[in-house]
Order: sequence, then C-alpha cells, then structure tokens
Amino acid sequence: MRFDIITVLPGLLESPFAHSILQRAQNKGLSEIYVHNLRDYSSNKHKSVDDYPYGGGSGMVMQIEPFAACIEKLKAERDYDEIIFMTPDGETFNQEIANGLSLKKNVIILCGHYKGIDQRIRDVYVTREISIGDYVLSGGELPAAIIVDAVVRLLPGVLSDETSALSDSFQGDLLDAPVYSRPADWRGHKVPEVLLSGNQAKIEQWRYEQSLERTQKRRPDLLE
Amino acid sequence: MRFDIITVLPGLLESPFAHSILQRAQNKGLSEIYVHNLRDYSSNKHKSVDDYPYGGGSGMVMQIEPFAACIEKLKAERDYDEIIFMTPDGETFNQEIANGLSLKKNVIILCGHYKGIDQRIRDVYVTREISIGDYVLSGGELPAAIIVDAVVRLLPGVLSDETSALSDSFQGDLLDAPVYSRPADWRGHKVPEVLLSGNQAKIEQWRYEQSLERTQKRRPDLLE
Repeated sequence: MRFDIITVLPGLLESPFAHSILQRAQNKGLSEIYVHNLRDYSSNKHKSVDDYPYGGGSGMVMQIEPFAACIEKLKAERDYDEIIFMTPDGETFNQEIANGLSLKKNVIILCGHYKGIDQRIRDVYVTREISIGDYVLSGGELPAAIIVDAVVRLLPGVLSDETSALSDSFQGDLLDAPVYSRPADWRGHKVPEVLLSGNQAKIEQWRYEQSLERTQKRRPDLLE
Repeated sequence: MRFDIITVLPGLLESPFAHSILQRAQNKGLSEIYVHNLRDYSSNKHKSVDDYPYGGGSGMVMQIEPFAACIEKLKAERDYDEIIFMTPDGETFNQEIANGLSLKKNVIILCGHYKGIDQRIRDVYVTREISIGDYVLSGGELPAAIIVDAVVRLLPGVLSDETSALSDSFQGDLLDAPVYSRPADWRGHKVPEVLLSGNQAKIEQWRYEQSLERTQKRRPDLLE
C-alpha cells in the first residue's frame, strides 16, 4: 500500500515514519510512504503556499494552486483510491475506517495548516475528510501519521504475530483485560492468582469477565 | 509547562517536537518537553523492558520496574500534576481535556507498546488514562505527541495571533465556515461573491450560516 502525504512540514514526519512498525513495513516492501513538500509546488519565488482569507479575519489560508499542482502530478503517475484531507470537521476516524483503508492501494493525504485550506481544494480534489478526534491541533501532519500507523499495522505480514492485531481493543466489542508480567510480587502488589494457576480455562474466563467489566465501566457505548 | 514523556522509542518523537509550534514554544521558554528512554531504567544487562504475560497469550507486556524507576526519579525532582497513560481504553481526549491540561505545570506521559503495560503501573502511578480515539495504534508515542501539540498551542504566547486558538473549531459550539484565498477564480471555480463584497456585516452573517449548516450536516451532536 502506498501513501503520498502532502505537507508544508515534511521534516515533522521524518522520525515517525523511520521507526517501529512503519519502518519495518517499508523495509519489508509492504508499504511505501512518500512525503511531499508543498512548497516545491509553489509557483512564486518566495515558495509561499498561503495568503490572506477573502472576507478578512485572522489566520492564513492555504491556496489551491500548489495543492492542485502536486495532486495532479501524482494522479498523472498512478490512480488513487482516496484523496484524504485531515480536518477537525471530517468524519471521526475509527477502527472500521482503518480496516477499510487497509484494503486500498494508493492514498493521498493532505495536511492542512494555518487557518485552513481553500474550500475549492476540498470541493475539487478531496474524496474523504477525516478527523482523528474532537480537538484542535497545529496541523494535519500528526493526524496523517496516526492514520498511516493505524492502517499499515493492519496490512498482512506487517505485525510479526498475526493474531495480535485481531485481538486488539476495538477489533472485538470489548476492551482488553488487564495484563501482568514479572515480578509476580512487586513491593506487595501481586499478580491476580488465577493468572499463575496454569488453568487456561479459568484464565480465559477471568479475562472475559475483566474485559466485560472494564467495558461496562469505561465504555458502555461499545456494548450497545 | 513541562512534559516528561517516557517511551521505548525516543527517536520516534524527535521530529514532531523539533518543528512548528512545539519548536517555537520551547524556543520561547513557554514549554519544556523531555523524552526519556525507558530502556535507560532497565536493570538487566539486555536493557529489556518487557516480558511474557502471566497466564499466557500473544504479545509482550511492559514491566513495572523500569517505569517505576523512571517515574520515581522524576517525582523526586519535582511535583507532577498528572501522570497520564495513553491507552485505547482511557477517557476520550477532547478540547475540554486539552484546555484543562493547559493549566497544569508538570505532566508525565507514559507511552505503552506491545500488548500493554503491567496493570500495576496503572494502579500505582497513573492518575489519568487518555485515548485519542477509537482506533488501535502501534504505540503511545504519536498519541503523546497529539496531546502535547493540542495543549501547548493553548499556552499564552505560543500562537502569534492570540485570537487564533479561540476561534478554532471545538472552542465554540460550531465547526468553522469554509475559507478561501487567491485566486478569486481558479479554472472557473469562484470564491463566493459575498466574501469579495467588502460588506463585513454580510460576511459575518454568511460565515455564521455556513458554520451552522456545516455543523448541522456533519456534527449535529455538537448542537445538542
């Protein structure tokens, strides 16, 4: 799966894509992630990509022309399944959307900044608008990294243990049960006895009850 | 405001904290962000921080001892207002939580990885558990960066235009109106005439109507 991310801050995304699962997925050839500097597509000598908003008001607006130039160059090279714009007023990202995106082949992600992007970019090019949650961030770069991380880990072969992604929270209807590792007794705080019992049936029963209880307490909406 | 982030992947967070608003906030002395490598607090010679889960099952569990050592070192140096654990089963992050955190002085953020962290870390040390949304990620590093970004931009003096943060989506009850910048006519796609009218009262009225319409269409829950 290929991601093309268009941003004014390509450097911000360097380290997230060079570590952990995203690094491994790229090394294994399971994912390609390209970050494009929007300023390279500016036609003016200052390489500016933003200007004042029509109608006045605070903040700068990202202009349509640099985005159009970058998107059209990419679209001339291959077909894209989605052109996603990261925006707080988009549909709220969830595991179901991540699962759906993991079946796509080529995806462009546009990162907004400043006050926003010219509405015509959204009208003309964008096929999907996604928000990672109800909070305001300084730009779309971290949200883009979140989407890529959530999706790439679902691609077959990326996680070493095939069962790991399927047993995560949100893939079923329940939150995970508590987990414990050594030492069994840490300053008097002990691991629940059942986990040391070796009785696998009892352990599974306990985990199910803990998952259910945690979900009822913390996220009853997931049980509806 | 000071953030201490504890992670097994300190390198992953390098570029997000070295760009844009987070960089400026640190340069201006308005925020301090320290990233601690959990492995430095491992007491074994392999610097490992995880082990198999009690009771069996897939995935590794992050052990209590390295976290305890790092947290206790930090707590000996200063008081912390919150020790936050980023986890998909935590309370869902939103602008209200960001506003609240921006009033704190010292905050520790723990980044989980692998299958999870030993429950006793949560029981003994963690004061608040936060999820950035209903999706699974490969670790708590990007979520920690999201929290820091959302909070730091609220600190007085961080944003150059003081009005910008207050006029964002989610600070009021409405989503933002569409924005436009030059050119006024791009391949036949024109900026709405009202924005070129110079009639500020009409422009504000149009923006309010657009905000309301967009909120009704996309996020009716925000109006309830």
